[in-house]
Amino acid sequence: MPPHPSLTPEQQDEIARLKAASTPTRRATVPALEEVLYEAHPVLDHGFVRVIDYMGDDAAIVQAARVSYGKGTRQVSQDRGLIRYLMRHRHTSPFEMCEIKLHVKLPIFIARQWVRHRTASLNEISARYSVLDREVYIPHPDHLAAQSSANHQGRGEALAGAEAERVLAILKDDAARTYANYEDMLNVDSDGAPLDPDRQGLARELARMNLTLNTYTQWYWKVDLHNLLHFLALRADHHAQLEIRLYAETILDLVEKWVPLTVEAFRDYRLGGTSLSAKDMQVVRRLLAGEAVEQPDSGLSAREWRELMAALDR
Amino acid sequence: MPPHPSLTPEQQDEIARLKAASTPTRRATVPALEEVLYEAHPVLDHGFVRVIDYMGDDAAIVQAARVSYGKGTRQVSQDRGLIRYLMRHRHTSPFEMCEIKLHVKLPIFIARQWVRHRTASLNEISARYSVLDREVYIPHPDHLAAQSSANHQGRGEALAGAEAERVLAILKDDAARTYANYEDMLNVDSDGAPLDPDRQGLARELARMNLTLNTYTQWYWKVDLHNLLHFLALRADHHAQLEIRLYAETILDLVEKWVPLTVEAFRDYRLGGTSLSAKDMQVVRRLLAGEAVEQPDSGLSAREWRELMAALDR
Amino acid sequence: MPPHPSLTPEQQDEIARLKAASTPTRRATVPALEEVLYEAHPVLDHGFVRVIDYMGDDAAIVQAARVSYGKGTRQVSQDRGLIRYLMRHRHTSPFEMCEIKLHVKLPIFIARQWVRHRTASLNEISARYSVLDREVYIPHPDHLAAQSSANHQGRGEALAGAEAERVLAILKDDAARTYANYEDMLNVDSDGAPLDPDRQGLARELARMNLTLNTYTQWYWKVDLHNLLHFLALRADHHAQLEIRLYAETILDLVEKWVPLTVEAFRDYRLGGTSLSAKDMQVVRRLLAGEAVEQPDSGLSAREWRELMAALDR
Amino acid sequence: MPPHPSLTPEQQDEIARLKAASTPTRRATVPALEEVLYEAHPVLDHGFVRVIDYMGDDAAIVQAARVSYGKGTRQVSQDRGLIRYLMRHRHTSPFEMCEIKLHVKLPIFIARQWVRHRTASLNEISARYSVLDREVYIPHPDHLAAQSSANHQGRGEALAGAEAERVLAILKDDAARTYANYEDMLNVDSDGAPLDPDRQGLARELARMNLTLNTYTQWYWKVDLHNLLHFLALRADHHAQLEIRLYAETILDLVEKWVPLTVEAFRDYRLGGTSLSAKDMQVVRRLLAGEAVEQPDSGLSAREWRELMAALDR
Repeated sequence: MPPHPSLTPEQQDEIARLKAASTPTRRATVPALEEVLYEAHPVLDHGFVRVIDYMGDDAAIVQAARVSYGKGTRQVSQDRGLIRYLMRHRHTSPFEMCEIKLHVKLPIFIARQWVRHRTASLNEISARYSVLDREVYIPHPDHLAAQSSANHQGRGEALAGAEAERVLAILKDDAARTYANYEDMLNVDSDGAPLDPDRQGLARELARMNLTLNTYTQWYWKVDLHNLLHFLALRADHHAQLEIRLYAETILDLVEKWVPLTVEAFRDYRLGGTSLSAKDMQVVRRLLAGEAVEQPDSGLSAREWRELMAALDR
Repeated sequence: MPPHPSLTPEQQDEIARLKAASTPTRRATVPALEEVLYEAHPVLDHGFVRVIDYMGDDAAIVQAARVSYGKGTRQVSQDRGLIRYLMRHRHTSPFEMCEIKLHVKLPIFIARQWVRHRTASLNEISARYSVLDREVYIPHPDHLAAQSSANHQGRGEALAGAEAERVLAILKDDAARTYANYEDMLNVDSDGAPLDPDRQGLARELARMNLTLNTYTQWYWKVDLHNLLHFLALRADHHAQLEIRLYAETILDLVEKWVPLTVEAFRDYRLGGTSLSAKDMQVVRRLLAGEAVEQPDSGLSAREWRELMAALDR
Repeated sequence: MPPHPSLTPEQQDEIARLKAASTPTRRATVPALEEVLYEAHPVLDHGFVRVIDYMGDDAAIVQAARVSYGKGTRQVSQDRGLIRYLMRHRHTSPFEMCEIKLHVKLPIFIARQWVRHRTASLNEISARYSVLDREVYIPHPDHLAAQSSANHQGRGEALAGAEAERVLAILKDDAARTYANYEDMLNVDSDGAPLDPDRQGLARELARMNLTLNTYTQWYWKVDLHNLLHFLALRADHHAQLEIRLYAETILDLVEKWVPLTVEAFRDYRLGGTSLSAKDMQVVRRLLAGEAVEQPDSGLSAREWRELMAALDR
Repeated sequence: MPPHPSLTPEQQDEIARLKAASTPTRRATVPALEEVLYEAHPVLDHGFVRVIDYMGDDAAIVQAARVSYGKGTRQVSQDRGLIRYLMRHRHTSPFEMCEIKLHVKLPIFIARQWVRHRTASLNEISARYSVLDREVYIPHPDHLAAQSSANHQGRGEALAGAEAERVLAILKDDAARTYANYEDMLNVDSDGAPLDPDRQGLARELARMNLTLNTYTQWYWKVDLHNLLHFLALRADHHAQLEIRLYAETILDLVEKWVPLTVEAFRDYRLGGTSLSAKDMQVVRRLLAGEAVEQPDSGLSAREWRELMAALDR
């Protein structure tokens, strides 16, 4: 994996040093995840996801579900069957027995969506304590979407040339100006030296309020596998905002290296699954019986009917 | 209470309508809190705290602690004694039996501190769905503090005249420009009409990234009394950032109307209380025995010694 | 409602006193739930559920989802549509804005299942502090089910006469003996007086270990509506153990008085809903296209096929 | 470590097999804890604590607190200072970055206290699904304490000979009878074969209700270090019931092998620490100033005064 463009040489050295060290352990270990431990997997223009640590593997889920003295079962096929059963019947507690710790760099407006997931542990860099780096998210032109006309919280097509250029210019310009003014108010230059020896500098906890919401922040985020899958089910979904979806997809790939049987079941039952209401199921049964059901006599509202037909590809 | 300056006449009407209605209930009711229900208690330049609903009172804490069929006790003095006992010995679960729901308007950078308290329920207005109002926090000149030279995450004195003016000008100017550009990218004017019929307008979920962190947001926040007291212990403390402290103090006043016995005990044991380590207590005992203890022979580090002497007013 | 058979006259008086008192409030109030507040709704032979307090109503869910200044909408039909939308798309946070507090009396082995739901507040009577009452759960003969031969954790038919009688005799006899020995070890009679002045009596926190798991306990349990619906989805389900299902059904009836629009949507989308996997949906689509799909070419395991056919009534 | 007396040879083999395997890892590893991984550390007569897995070490706390790319600091002394600072100022989130998973065997009445700690993950063996083993907790005669006359929920001296013998006989006798009747109702012998081919056997989920509360159960319990320390602060305290305290002390010893710097700080600031109220501190300051304060003019109740004097060893 090539070095991440936003890492300093010192940071790359630290990562290389961690990757080089190896110690023996009696704990459950997953070679495919060990392989990419500590690496900065890029997301967006300056962001990344790094796996810092993990606990457990697919077998640990089985082991906990059985409250066993040794490993869960002797055969992978039995583990697979039990994991599918647990996922299908939403027996969620064994999935809580695996844990992962990530280091994530992400824009603040995405961080604000992320923290709606409360059952996780978090340590974020503090802009009361430190001066934030001059790094802001500027969307790739392909991602510069128009407001959807059909959906209040959706995106339409990408903006056309002139409008896209105008938007990019605004985003870059405002971010550059507000960051420069942040340093001005702090009275520090990029090396941390005073700009003007006669000024005191505004408190960091106040100056940060001038930064725009696309400024990058960083955090350590630790979560159990059950709550992570819930996060992924919502954030790797096509209703999620593209930017957080790109993080979710990167994380899902890493989770697949870690617990492949669980991710297989998750893709089948949750990500690709469909929830049908009691009324939906009545319609499906009538259709299967050969009846020609139409929306007005379906018991469904127009919107529910549309959603059901979409799910059935009709 | 005079109307809050940031409320529209329609919002004031809605609040007046809610305040005018009264229905009988058999539930525990607190007249002093009913008196101020729904009102917008101002904080900072555009923010507020409104109490929307509450469950329980001081007696409900006692009732739950005793798992009783009726009210907890017959006498306020007994309730007071038991509440002080529960607070002193950190028997926290009975305090979870009271609940309060607030509507809060606050700057985004404060909202980001607030959500570190995870054991609460939250509904925030969505800037994916709606266009945010043109309201930003500009600190009062008295609150425009310099960075503390002694404390990495603290404030020093207020900035002097010229530097303060410069900072205020930057904050106002950048907020005005980034908000104007937000509308420009959205291609909407302040009434929601298109600025230019030939442009599509950037998706709201993207355009918001250009806003600065002092833009106001709003949410409904519901929390139980135990977790609220924990929030207040941290955020009404003098280590907390002034802006969130002002919210915490406003809330503490409202909580005092609601559960006065609990707040009395909280002020004594928690807000005004001091935690001393085993080593600290050894020093206190030696001092009480008349010994002339100095830092080098105290077993405390220089920093711990300084903190202990400050706590003892020596 | 007739008085609950296990309540003492003093307890009935306390409840009557609470029911008689009425005070005005500006809060959201639900007359249908006020009507049954404080009453002991019987479950099993000695158990009950009492509603002690509640916060919010259907409109409060809408109000929070919109972060509004007044009530959510002007019309019940709009509230209904939005609540159904929230339920269908699992936008769960607005349902957290309602809260209910129950007083429940239940056998210990059911209490142990109940506490697996962790996102709730709980105050239980302490058998370290008090002597527990002589009340145990003895199943009704109709509920005295044989072990299912098909399902490791299921029930079969009710036991036949002689075996049922034998079981009932054992349960009654062992409960009576272990409770009598509990009092003997405590050295107290049923009025709390010493049985033998020359004995000290075993500590209550130890003596309780001799009680059987069908002994009744009591607690105050407070939970938000989202977490309560999750509890009901699992515990009012036919996979749940009958005894906890009877509690769940009693609670669901009370919740229906409280938030009827929410319960209507919950019954349709959650209780009566079906989750289909990606593979299940492929089979459904093939069947709807007129294809004669059989298990071997369905991509489903035998067990998954059986579960799908059952859901489709085929 | 000698094999635990309650483990079968098969279970001992499983443990030996896990201990023998070793794989390389790049994760943070703690040799002192690896040494005792999987072993059954005995508690009470049949109980144990086994460490199954762990994530992080003292350095990981520092690393998360600094949101660093590599390890937290280069020197143990710096780590120690920062950890003490975090503990002293109750900056708890970095301690959430370490996680431990235990397998615990414990009596049911202790399990019921344990689950009051809700912020943890749990998988317990199911007595709906399996037949529980014939193992009950019978206290050691030294632990057979009388009810305290001074404290409603405390223990006094150990019971004298005849009363102790009587109690032990009751506990053993009732446990033996109720367990035998449990098998009788299930219609299984200790090998799982039917006792009487003409009986069906009561459902396991019902039969278990005849067991006494000192029957042993088992679970996997996973918790982060912050919540574990909170558990230990309450359960390794002398107010805790002896039986759960013995588990807490065993766990504390294991945690000390894992994160020794954290446990050192925890012992000083939390376990050995004292919380003084605002009024307590006024009394301490007056005493230090040489004033002869007595309870009536202290502002403290008689009970608070007694507790303060005890803390000050006066």
